[in-house]
Formats: sequence, C-alpha cells, structure tokens
Amino acid sequence: MTVYLDHAATTPLRPEARDAWLAAHEVLGNPSSIHGAGQSARRLLEDARERLAEVLGCQPIEVVLTSGGTEATNLALKGLWWSRSDSAEALVLPDGEHHATLDTVGWLTAHAGAAVRPVGLDALGRIPIDDFSAVLSGSALATALVANNEVGTVQDAAGLAHASAEAGVPLHLDAVSALGHIDVDFAAWRGAGSSSSGLVALSVSAHKVGGPVGVGAAVVSRHARMTPLLHGGGQQRGLRAGTQDVAGAAAFAAAATAAEAQREREAARLRALQERLVHGILTSIPMARLLGDPEDRLPGNAHILFPDAAGETLLFLLDMAGIAVSTGSACQAGVLEPSHVVLALGLDDRAARSVLRFSLGHTSTEADIEAVLAALPLAYERAVASGARSASAS
Amino acid sequence: MTVYLDHAATTPLRPEARDAWLAAHEVLGNPSSIHGAGQSARRLLEDARERLAEVLGCQPIEVVLTSGGTEATNLALKGLWWSRSDSAEALVLPDGEHHATLDTVGWLTAHAGAAVRPVGLDALGRIPIDDFSAVLSGSALATALVANNEVGTVQDAAGLAHASAEAGVPLHLDAVSALGHIDVDFAAWRGAGSSSSGLVALSVSAHKVGGPVGVGAAVVSRHARMTPLLHGGGQQRGLRAGTQDVAGAAAFAAAATAAEAQREREAARLRALQERLVHGILTSIPMARLLGDPEDRLPGNAHILFPDAAGETLLFLLDMAGIAVSTGSACQAGVLEPSHVVLALGLDDRAARSVLRFSLGHTSTEADIEAVLAALPLAYERAVASGARSASAS
Repeated sequence: MTVYLDHAATTPLRPEARDAWLAAHEVLGNPSSIHGAGQSARRLLEDARERLAEVLGCQPIEVVLTSGGTEATNLALKGLWWSRSDSAEALVLPDGEHHATLDTVGWLTAHAGAAVRPVGLDALGRIPIDDFSAVLSGSALATALVANNEVGTVQDAAGLAHASAEAGVPLHLDAVSALGHIDVDFAAWRGAGSSSSGLVALSVSAHKVGGPVGVGAAVVSRHARMTPLLHGGGQQRGLRAGTQDVAGAAAFAAAATAAEAQREREAARLRALQERLVHGILTSIPMARLLGDPEDRLPGNAHILFPDAAGETLLFLLDMAGIAVSTGSACQAGVLEPSHVVLALGLDDRAARSVLRFSLGHTSTEADIEAVLAALPLAYERAVASGARSASAS
Repeated sequence: MTVYLDHAATTPLRPEARDAWLAAHEVLGNPSSIHGAGQSARRLLEDARERLAEVLGCQPIEVVLTSGGTEATNLALKGLWWSRSDSAEALVLPDGEHHATLDTVGWLTAHAGAAVRPVGLDALGRIPIDDFSAVLSGSALATALVANNEVGTVQDAAGLAHASAEAGVPLHLDAVSALGHIDVDFAAWRGAGSSSSGLVALSVSAHKVGGPVGVGAAVVSRHARMTPLLHGGGQQRGLRAGTQDVAGAAAFAAAATAAEAQREREAARLRALQERLVHGILTSIPMARLLGDPEDRLPGNAHILFPDAAGETLLFLLDMAGIAVSTGSACQAGVLEPSHVVLALGLDDRAARSVLRFSLGHTSTEADIEAVLAALPLAYERAVASGARSASAS
C-alpha cells in the first residue's frame, strides 16, 4: 500500500465524481443535438456548469470547459494575446510560474512577438505587488499563479487583480493548485465593472480536486476579449469548440462541490498534518528547511530543502519504502533539472536539486505522516552519503 | 425509450470502455511522476497507446492523445501550418469538410495568411483525385475527411495520400467519422518512406466508437514537422502538453479495440439495417432520395433528402414520436442554416434545408428501423403541409 504524498500531481478520484460520471452516461446524447436526448444531455451539462460557477464565484456563462488546466492556461494566454486590441507587446510574467504558462509565453515570445517583463519573487515565493504594478503599464497582458504549485506560496490574488485593473491590463490567474485548498472567488477578486482589463481569466483543473483527468475550465469574464484556441462547432460562446464532455463536467462539478463543502475543515486538518510533518522533519533532520511562505501557503504543501542530498535520490529511496513524493511539479518530474521555482527564491543550483515536495490531500492520514517520518532520516543519511561518494568519485 | 439514430453525433459508451475507465482509477498516479505509483499509471497509459496504435495502423509513439477530434484537427492543421518550412501559403481544402476543419482554416486564413485552394465535390460527395492533385503543387498543406460526417461518402484515402506524397505536400486526414466503420490504416495509406510530406496526420475521436467524450487522438507521423497547440510540461513528444488522461486513454483503447474486432461483422449488420431503412423510406415516400455515394459510404449512414419538408420540422416531429435523428452534424444542429455539405453536392438551398441524417451504431436494432418506418410517412406529410402553410402565409 503506497503512502501517497503527491496529491499536487494528481489526487484520487472522489466517489462523488465517479458516481456523477457513471450517472451522466445513463443519458445518451450530444448536448449540441436539438432532439430530446440531446437536450437532456444539455440540461446535465448546464447543471454542472452552474455548480462549477458557484464554486468559482463566477457566472455559469463564464465557465468555459476545457481538457484541463494546461489547455485553460493556453487558451487564456494565447487567446488574450491574439485578441489584444492595441499594439502592446509586453507580457508581465512573474518568476516561478508553472510550465503551462512558461512554455506558452516562450512560444508567444519566439513566434508572436511577445516581450516578457519579468517580476522577481521574494525569498518566500511571494510576488511583490509593487514590483508587479511597476511593469504593468502599457502591457498587453499579465499572468500569475494564485498558489505556487511547487513551494505552495499563496499570492495576494485580489491585490494582483486590483493592480491590473488600475493599469488597464487584462490578467490571467492560474488557480489550478489553489482550487479546493483556498477560497477561489473570481467575482470577488475581479471586482465590479465591465472592463476588458483587470482579472478576466482564471484556470482550474478537475483532477487536482478529485475529479477526472482531462477536464478543466477557464473562467472567462463576459467582458474579456479572447480568441479561441480550438476552432470548430462554435460551442461555449465560440470560445472552445469540440463536443462538450457532459460526464466530465458532471464529475468535475461533483468533485469541486465536495471539495468546496469540506474546504475549511479539510484545510485545518491538512494544515495540522503538514505542521506535524514539517516539525518532525526539522526535528530529525536539523539541516532541513521549509521553503515557501510559512504562513500564506497551501495547507497540504510541505516543500523541504534537504542540504547535500539530491532530491531525486531521496525520492527513489522513499519510493522503495513505499512512499510517493515529488521533487517538483509532476510535469517536470521526468526531467532532471534544478527547480526553476527554487532558483526564483534566490537559492543556488545545488539547493534547487535538493528539494522534495510533500503534498497532502483528501485521503491523507496521520499514518502517512508517521510513515514518512519513520523512513526519512535513514533515506536522508543515505542520500547524503551517495552524494558524497559521487562528489569524491568525480 | 428513445429510438436513437444519431450515433454519428455520439454513440453510447461501451461496457468495455466504462470498465477500463473504472479500472484505471484503481491505479493512482500522474504518469509523468517518476515514483512507482506514477510509473504504474504510465504503464497503463502506454498499454492503451499500443492498442490504439494497433487499431490505427501506426506506431505507438505516433499516437498523440488529445481531448477529442476537434483538438486533433486543430493541432494537425495549425501545427502543420505553423511549422511549414517554406513560404507556401496555400491550403488545399475540399468542399463539405467538418466545421473543426472549416473554422480552423477560416482562422488561419483571416489571421495567419493562409490562402484556400478549394476542391469541389462531385454529385455523390466524392473528392475527385485529379482535381485534388491539380491544386496540390506548391501548397503548404492539404486536408480531407476520410468519410463525410453528414452524407456518409467514403473517400479514396490512399489516393489522396498518394497524390499528396507525389506533390510533396503534408496531408491531414479527418477520420473521426470513419473509425470503427471502415478500415482506418495510417501506415497503409501513408506508404513507406521518411518524408515530412504525404499523409502525416490523422484525427480520431473516442466517443464516436463507444469511448468517452473528451478523448481523441492525432496520429502524427514521426517524420512530420508540427508545432504544438498546447504548450506546457512537454508530454507526448512535446506535441501536446497537459497531464495525460490515463483512464480516458484506457477507455478509448478498450472501445476502439472492441469496435475494430467487431467491425466487419458489424458493418455488414448495419449495412443491412441501413438498406432496409432506405428501401422502406423510398417505398413509402417516393419523392425522397438517398444522398451521398450509394456504394462507398459509411455502413450505418442514411442521409435522405425529403423534398418540400423542412428537415428541422421532420426532426421535431420524429422527436415527438421518440425518435432521435439529426439534420446534419450535431455540432451545427443548434444553428438553423442549410447544410454546406448538401450545397457542395450541387443541390440548392431549399434541398440543403430538407435533409435528415439517420446514423446507426452498435446498439441499433431492427426494431429501431421499423419504428422510423412506421412514424416517417405521417411526419413527412405533416412537414410538407407545415411548409406549404408557411409558404402561403408569407
């Protein structure tokens, strides 16, 4: 039985989501079909959209269903870029963003004339609002993570949105790692008004809250100007073509609703487990250090620097002990590079290869934490020794 | 109990696909994670990819999983366009293509400098290979439906691929409506060689063969030059970022494998039902006419012209009798426009509003056909009368 502490990579499907997915298949029909069967499917779909809107703090028509967080982020960034009404070419990009953002911006830079205006993070992984504001003026668009998927630092989303609105710049927020863990409220962050700037788009993903993989959404303000990424049958306000996935939407809505209903209680529970974990690690391995903001962080995230140990070696040793953790985001985990997020905190390349992310979720238990605390000291000792051997051999 | 004859819009989830989807959730992990849990998920994913490759006649590495047919077509067309190595701007586009193609090409034309070279269809909906070949030379890319999703005409896919290879032009084939009904064989159509032209990409969708909605694939030749549509974590040869949907892939593989195993027997069964349906309709409504190629057509497709009756009225009257059919592709069904495919056959605007598509699938029975044949004469009479009243009132 694996001790699974990689919920940030993907978290188990909730029973409510599985049941909703199965129940949706009792209704047969393409929701774009005008016959009764299609309209029954359409009702299920719109019901799911309404429940998602309630969780996300937006209007149902603003929920554009996608195949996941990556597509939502690609749609938001490319869609806002392609539809910008002026000649602005600057794109405000904080350090330490997710690869879905980094690689999309990289492509817009290489192929579409975008010019990045970077914003550094502070040592705790926070985006300084003043620094962010300072580069907004005259930009085509801005983007930011609501909560960093690696180090867990939670940003001041309302502050970023307010600064963007003040500067008249459209803002995309990536809330993939935040949803279900902190209060994600599009309308509250966006504020009133019908401007096409300020917070206009927000990305979320189903499988991070116990829904299926392959389902996500971009919240797109009714006032946003956005070019679609997928062209075709004109579904979803023309913003996202493709047969709409009724079962996926129903499962996402069920998972998000369940996660939201339990959020405050669950956040307290995970925070207690996380504190137990961090305290236990720092007690047995005094060299270790918690990265990210100790206060404003995802409740289930413990991102730890283990000096002189390769994160990858630690990961393998824990894996052999039946414990699944990550060295960073799962999307990068196959690539053995130093974490760009840790570098963005001002740490060096060596430190950026010596980190582990423990991410807790809805199935995590006290026993999981005890298992880690039992296995980690020996794993750390071996990883340090392994590193020392490699160093002396080279 | 609905008599469902709209399988081309979406067909019921096969039990094999549902079971595969549920079983995949017994394995927890993001297939990009390097721990044991992730690698177990990865094995499930690669097993699904192998089985899909077997059905599609390609190599596993050539199967790029997407969120469906629309994304696959968008990836193929935009990806080939953006990565074209020369300055060619022409895009060969037969008439009567699916909206996923039409709207993508429309956007490339309006925003990326593409210039369409159209190819007309003959009266049966066939793409004349000579006409296709005549405009290929010097084009950036070409695209075509393997089987028309409305009128059911099956093209000479190998001939189109051969002509494209001869002309040195990369070709995308949309096989969404063909898969499971005719033999889709990427390698056989492509032929040998390592050229980046000829058939290099092919789109398919899971929910048209009894898999889940929200899952599809682009077969992308190892030799193709293609820019990704979704940027991010570098999954799938860097061609399609986003957490890979293991359960969706497993369900798609299960559905496609089941459909392929039964294909020849099922095609004969559906063809017999289709002939019974068409014969019955033409006998009771002598004015009616089968559109599309009477021989080279999808076995479960009956696309019928009902002169002097609005297809939409017929659809509603049949729907009231518990029979679900379509006036065209489901993606357009909400839009009350004449079918562009019927217009492409050389028929007039009035005819293009007087058609119904009956599409049969794996759950279709003799009783379904008898129900249609029992209800249709009166529905037709009423639809004609309704049309005559509208005409005299106007």
